[in-house]
Amino acid sequence: MATIGIGVIGGGYMGKAHSAAFAAVGTVFETTLKPRLAAICGASEASGARYAQAYGFDRAGANWQDVVEDPKVGAVVIASPQDTHLEIAQAAFTLGKPVMCEKPMGLDVAEAEAMCAAADAAGVPHMVAYNYIRTPAAQFVRKLLADGALGQITSFRVEHTEDFFADATVSSWRAHGAANGCLGDLAPHPINAALALMGPVAEVNAVIETVHPTRGGESVTNDDQVTMMMRFDSGVLGHLFASRVATGRKMGYVYEIFGTRGAVRFDQEDQNSVHLYLAEGPEAQRGFTRVLTGPEHPDYLPFCQGPGHGTGYQDQIIIEAKDFLTAIDTGQPVWPTFHDGLAVHRVMAAARASDASRGWQAV
Amino acid sequence: MATIGIGVIGGGYMGKAHSAAFAAVGTVFETTLKPRLAAICGASEASGARYAQAYGFDRAGANWQDVVEDPKVGAVVIASPQDTHLEIAQAAFTLGKPVMCEKPMGLDVAEAEAMCAAADAAGVPHMVAYNYIRTPAAQFVRKLLADGALGQITSFRVEHTEDFFADATVSSWRAHGAANGCLGDLAPHPINAALALMGPVAEVNAVIETVHPTRGGESVTNDDQVTMMMRFDSGVLGHLFASRVATGRKMGYVYEIFGTRGAVRFDQEDQNSVHLYLAEGPEAQRGFTRVLTGPEHPDYLPFCQGPGHGTGYQDQIIIEAKDFLTAIDTGQPVWPTFHDGLAVHRVMAAARASDASRGWQAV
Amino acid sequence: MATIGIGVIGGGYMGKAHSAAFAAVGTVFETTLKPRLAAICGASEASGARYAQAYGFDRAGANWQDVVEDPKVGAVVIASPQDTHLEIAQAAFTLGKPVMCEKPMGLDVAEAEAMCAAADAAGVPHMVAYNYIRTPAAQFVRKLLADGALGQITSFRVEHTEDFFADATVSSWRAHGAANGCLGDLAPHPINAALALMGPVAEVNAVIETVHPTRGGESVTNDDQVTMMMRFDSGVLGHLFASRVATGRKMGYVYEIFGTRGAVRFDQEDQNSVHLYLAEGPEAQRGFTRVLTGPEHPDYLPFCQGPGHGTGYQDQIIIEAKDFLTAIDTGQPVWPTFHDGLAVHRVMAAARASDASRGWQAV
Amino acid sequence: MATIGIGVIGGGYMGKAHSAAFAAVGTVFETTLKPRLAAICGASEASGARYAQAYGFDRAGANWQDVVEDPKVGAVVIASPQDTHLEIAQAAFTLGKPVMCEKPMGLDVAEAEAMCAAADAAGVPHMVAYNYIRTPAAQFVRKLLADGALGQITSFRVEHTEDFFADATVSSWRAHGAANGCLGDLAPHPINAALALMGPVAEVNAVIETVHPTRGGESVTNDDQVTMMMRFDSGVLGHLFASRVATGRKMGYVYEIFGTRGAVRFDQEDQNSVHLYLAEGPEAQRGFTRVLTGPEHPDYLPFCQGPGHGTGYQDQIIIEAKDFLTAIDTGQPVWPTFHDGLAVHRVMAAARASDASRGWQAV
Ligand SMILES: NC(=O)C1=CN([C@@H]2O[C@H](COP(=O)(O)OP(=O)(O)OC[C@H]3O[C@@H](n4cnc5c(N)ncnc54)[C@H](O)[C@@H]3O)[C@@H](O)[C@H]2O)C=CC1
Ligand SMILES: NC(=O)C1=CN([C@@H]2O[C@H](COP(=O)(O)OP(=O)(O)OC[C@H]3O[C@@H](n4cnc5c(N)ncnc54)[C@H](O)[C@@H]3O)[C@@H](O)[C@H]2O)C=CC1
Ligand SMILES: NC(=O)C1=CN([C@@H]2O[C@H](COP(=O)(O)OP(=O)(O)OC[C@H]3O[C@@H](n4cnc5c(N)ncnc54)[C@H](O)[C@@H]3O)[C@@H](O)[C@H]2O)C=CC1
Ligand SMILES: NC(=O)C1=CN([C@@H]2O[C@H](COP(=O)(O)OP(=O)(O)OC[C@H]3O[C@@H](n4cnc5c(N)ncnc54)[C@H](O)[C@@H]3O)[C@@H](O)[C@H]2O)C=CC1
Repeated sequence: MATIGIGVIGGGYMGKAHSAAFAAVGTVFETTLKPRLAAICGASEASGARYAQAYGFDRAGANWQDVVEDPKVGAVVIASPQDTHLEIAQAAFTLGKPVMCEKPMGLDVAEAEAMCAAADAAGVPHMVAYNYIRTPAAQFVRKLLADGALGQITSFRVEHTEDFFADATVSSWRAHGAANGCLGDLAPHPINAALALMGPVAEVNAVIETVHPTRGGESVTNDDQVTMMMRFDSGVLGHLFASRVATGRKMGYVYEIFGTRGAVRFDQEDQNSVHLYLAEGPEAQRGFTRVLTGPEHPDYLPFCQGPGHGTGYQDQIIIEAKDFLTAIDTGQPVWPTFHDGLAVHRVMAAARASDASRGWQAV
Repeated sequence: MATIGIGVIGGGYMGKAHSAAFAAVGTVFETTLKPRLAAICGASEASGARYAQAYGFDRAGANWQDVVEDPKVGAVVIASPQDTHLEIAQAAFTLGKPVMCEKPMGLDVAEAEAMCAAADAAGVPHMVAYNYIRTPAAQFVRKLLADGALGQITSFRVEHTEDFFADATVSSWRAHGAANGCLGDLAPHPINAALALMGPVAEVNAVIETVHPTRGGESVTNDDQVTMMMRFDSGVLGHLFASRVATGRKMGYVYEIFGTRGAVRFDQEDQNSVHLYLAEGPEAQRGFTRVLTGPEHPDYLPFCQGPGHGTGYQDQIIIEAKDFLTAIDTGQPVWPTFHDGLAVHRVMAAARASDASRGWQAV
Repeated sequence: MATIGIGVIGGGYMGKAHSAAFAAVGTVFETTLKPRLAAICGASEASGARYAQAYGFDRAGANWQDVVEDPKVGAVVIASPQDTHLEIAQAAFTLGKPVMCEKPMGLDVAEAEAMCAAADAAGVPHMVAYNYIRTPAAQFVRKLLADGALGQITSFRVEHTEDFFADATVSSWRAHGAANGCLGDLAPHPINAALALMGPVAEVNAVIETVHPTRGGESVTNDDQVTMMMRFDSGVLGHLFASRVATGRKMGYVYEIFGTRGAVRFDQEDQNSVHLYLAEGPEAQRGFTRVLTGPEHPDYLPFCQGPGHGTGYQDQIIIEAKDFLTAIDTGQPVWPTFHDGLAVHRVMAAARASDASRGWQAV
Repeated sequence: MATIGIGVIGGGYMGKAHSAAFAAVGTVFETTLKPRLAAICGASEASGARYAQAYGFDRAGANWQDVVEDPKVGAVVIASPQDTHLEIAQAAFTLGKPVMCEKPMGLDVAEAEAMCAAADAAGVPHMVAYNYIRTPAAQFVRKLLADGALGQITSFRVEHTEDFFADATVSSWRAHGAANGCLGDLAPHPINAALALMGPVAEVNAVIETVHPTRGGESVTNDDQVTMMMRFDSGVLGHLFASRVATGRKMGYVYEIFGTRGAVRFDQEDQNSVHLYLAEGPEAQRGFTRVLTGPEHPDYLPFCQGPGHGTGYQDQIIIEAKDFLTAIDTGQPVWPTFHDGLAVHRVMAAARASDASRGWQAV
């Protein structure tokens, strides 16, 4: 039984999620390579120690360097803020260690390019953690598209709406810095979905706006929502909407795809079903079918033998961990690589340019 | 018991719907002014005769002039194609007869302006038949907005998606003429909804496209879908999508409105419910409430004493007929008047200009 | 254009609904026989006069005899309370006039039997007004069953839940008299549905109960809800639940039918969709399909050419009026006849006997 | 960091699920007592070895005795077939080891009683694995009931419908033995739900039936479905339906609870939402609210900081593992104990007696 030590940088929201995923993945997916929670760190020694104890790691690192350099750490998971991604990834690659990095992978196009260069130079597996596009439901939709089940695609809509910042009296560090705004932080998910489902984007026409210029008296320096028309290389016309002030929406990661022979609707708030319409069979019996995910769909069976029993948020991180382990085990790159993560940044940059120029902008 | 003779021009889809509405409305709404199906006509004498017999009119008119001029006809309903609206309306107004005209009220801005001028000169009631925005559900939503129940509005999305032209092997007269394209024929409904719910539009940024340039070998001369970013006078940012090739969607008249204190979602495919979120009460009990229409909502009770029993398509035309009768009875204008119909045309014109210039266009 | 004068007894909830239906049906269904609102009456002369004026009848009858005997009245609609049904029906049949009677058709089995006898003796059309089973959705489900689309049926569930009496501080005449209780008043609808969908009932095992023995200080003399296991002649096992205290349910007329090859779920609170599962095609694409009613389904097209535009409560009464007119026009009986109405009473009687004996009771 | 070795008996459907749960729970719930996958076994040495390797256990046991007696095993999870539960539990209790046993805990009332006796004698924690009633949604519903949010309960419905045996050409060991029939295997879940939500059952009136007496030529010796009217000690009337031939239903664990002040509907096929109706606020704004589970609900936060991100099947097993660890850590019993599991068996036995006698049967 081969094992690999996992080093996790950061133990907050995602650092914990990745830790739990690596704790479970060996059992769930019966991987040949079994991960071990080797080391974790936080922004301070104290927080690292707390995480190690709480999540059951072998040891706490004093800082990220300590974790990355630990010989027992065979692969690195970066779950710290965007502005730390580049440096940590470079250090890990220098040591020849595979890296899974949280989205959106660095602060901007330049950082993402530098991370790609470092990854390519190292020649080890790398991956960006766009987990929503790995659920059994999302994989099923990607397969439907790959199989041409919907015919020629005619339009696409994607949204990511949450309401954690709907209340304008609430503020936090999230109110500052482009990387923490809606375009920088939330929109990468639907942009990634757009790329994964529809392929490369040719041009965009976006409006980025701050709905609440002040929060609790303080001024806000980043955006609350973005609306964007998109033209894909394939010619398909699409639209994206992302918002952190969409009152009532908790996890409104939604897409609708229309094609000449069928259509798909998905809403992460009901993540275990895909609504599929096929323009076949008697007209009187057509409609959107609510397909519940089950053992027939990708990566579902390891979680449960029964259909309709469902997976949850933590499970999509486990699927991600499995894919990363497989990449390490086989030496094959696994989608989305850093290059795919860079593509997301390019769309974000085009959106900013479009907003500034009030017009279409090539990606 | 006062009665008024109704003259209907056209006996197709909408001509029949209006006939049935005027047959029922006196009983349903117990109007003091009771309508009588006085005269109807079609494109030919034969079709007019057929309609009169089938729908139970007192007589058939040989042509529209015959109906408009009939002294027993006290009010005129125009349910013939767009290119006939102007002339008929002018004739009716000259005789001082109130007019309800089908949407989108003439062929273009110029015609709509001429119709407004004629209406104003006549000083009699006039109305454009945007029936979807009259359902109990829609009226309830308008009331919520008027009452400020959602707080300050932060974003708006509207769509009208159907699939009657999704199959590219199918063609008809609908494949020709701007007025019969998606922007000309379908988009007026969501544009009207946008105006009714959000107020005047300041500028738009639209793409109009023909997905299937040929249908069954023949070339198509109008558009299949339109996507449009909108900025309202109020500052609210919105998006509109209309499509006649949205496979699987039958009556996808949808809107989503987000505000600082609540949100609303509506889909005409479940026309008797409004999904309402209010950011109040314990967090653990919040969510979108599926409010079924009932006697508490505008114009529902006359159809049924029981809540949740529901109204249908024909009923929204009956509500419209009631409002037109009320306008006649009271001499008060009733929304949407021809001026409101003209506003829809102005947005359509701005969309065409925006598409041509690939940029924002003031309305 | 042949016409028939309709006489309506009662102008309350259902009297008005039938009046509106007969006002509209000639136009909607383009019937060859056109109904005319000839006469209506209420419990007093004054109320009859009020109804006649409000609904647009030719005249008010002083009482029901006056309406039934009016030579201009060619067919009688009984929409007065149960305890008046027998006498009125007998009088109409004596004069050879067709009768549509509101459910549940008299007070008990004995009255229903007497009504059947009178109807048979007269040899004219007769019908009981179970309107929920006439919607396009319900007719579509009946057709699926008739076609064997679901295979052999394995289980059946029906419910009718409303909450108009959930609040125990509220009382009315509905709190008194077996005929006005839940079993007497509400349960006939789901029992009729059970018979229509599953065929004759062999035996039942029921509990009938009064949840609130007093209302606002006064004692209640009838029941609030009934639960009933049913064995059909076909061998299928079913269950029925009816309640007038089901908080939150407004029109919970629900059925679920499972068969070896498929299943159907229906809820009147979303009356324009039928959820259909067919055990065919790739397992990964199966699920319940939300079929929206449209022109492909029975009796939909006359209301609207577009699919998914939907019908409402009033429309199901219009369909009923059409079927009654057709019965008159063709001289053919139309389901559900008085004999079908009697079958409902027999199940109700068996339920009461079962509740009294705490055991299975043959119907 | 205290650790405890977990010994798992069986590595099939549930054996694997528990293994994954114990692998993850220490990280997810940050338990002070960290479990270790100490030993696992199957029906043969070979299968035990396979499981140990696949799931990452320290070692494989040759048989269940080997695992139970292993000094490194501090607690035992029984995930082998019903007929093995008693013996294994007794052995574990003799050694003073806490036991979590899969439902329905032995073959019948007698075995369940013997298991309770052994548990009580040992004085160590014991628990039956009714995991569906531990989801954040189910816990939230239990809390609503405990808080009286729905008022006085007036009716209750529960169902558990799946379709794994809908196809009558399919057979397996599940077609034989009362414990593997629908009542024996599936119904324990909804019975447990009934007890958890509504309290003790006073009497039942049940029909148990075999829809397909043969499967692929072979005769079937157990039942396919059960329908049951229930009277709770509280006086509430309820109904239960369980079926393994409910075509289209994958995980139809459903309950509906009506009370004088509110109502709840839940369907495990959309396991992250609870539909809650409260009879308060303006009538025009009432309806069922789809409450998405989130950090405000019990045991959700450890899985994810964001509301609406959702948990899945595997997560409910993790919650169960956490509660078992807590019981061990604190020495406090945790619901549902073996005594609660025995209560389920008593209802099952009463159902069998009722079916045999065709009448009500006290529990
Ligand atoms: N894929 C997804 O669904 C999500 C991704 N993210 C991404 O995950 C990353 C982390 O975000 P969260 O977990 O939400 O933040 P968080 O604030 O919850 O956690 C950040 C962690 O990083 C640690 N940290 C900060 N600076 C550090 C340093 N210099 N060295 C070592 N550790 C350091 C902190 O101690 C903390 O444990 C971000 O890139 C974010 O965009 C966040 C939420 C969801
Ligand atoms: N409000 C709504 O939901 C809808 C509105 N409409 C609008 O209603 C109008 C009519 O459309 P449909 O009823 O769908 O068309 P249709 O083709 O079904 O019927 C058109 C009718 O007009 C008659 N007609 C044509 N030329 C005429 C003339 N010169 N004089 C008298 N009658 C003439 C035809 O004989 C036919 O009866 C259009 O303005 C259309 O945009 C159409 C469908 C839905
Ligand atoms: N099919 C359905 O969905 C429904 C059926 N019903 C049935 O319709 C019938 C009437 O019920 P509702 O309309 O709800 O009652 P309601 O109380 O609203 O109206 C009853 C009407 O009967 C009139 N009436 C009473 N005694 C009369 C008499 N001796 N002669 C003439 N008129 C008399 C009253 O003036 C009143 O207009 C009942 O049989 C009831 O079960 C009621 C509601 C729904
Ligand atoms: N809580 C829940 O949702 C579910 C509970 N169950 C319950 O879990 C238990 C196991 O069922 P499944 O996992 O579905 O069965 P399974 O057939 O998938 O697995 C049974 C396991 O027990 C092992 N086994 C059999 N005899 C054994 C013996 N004498 N000694 C040691 N191991 C032995 C087998 O090798 C196999 O690994 C049953 O009590 C069942 O009712 C099953 C499915 C769902």
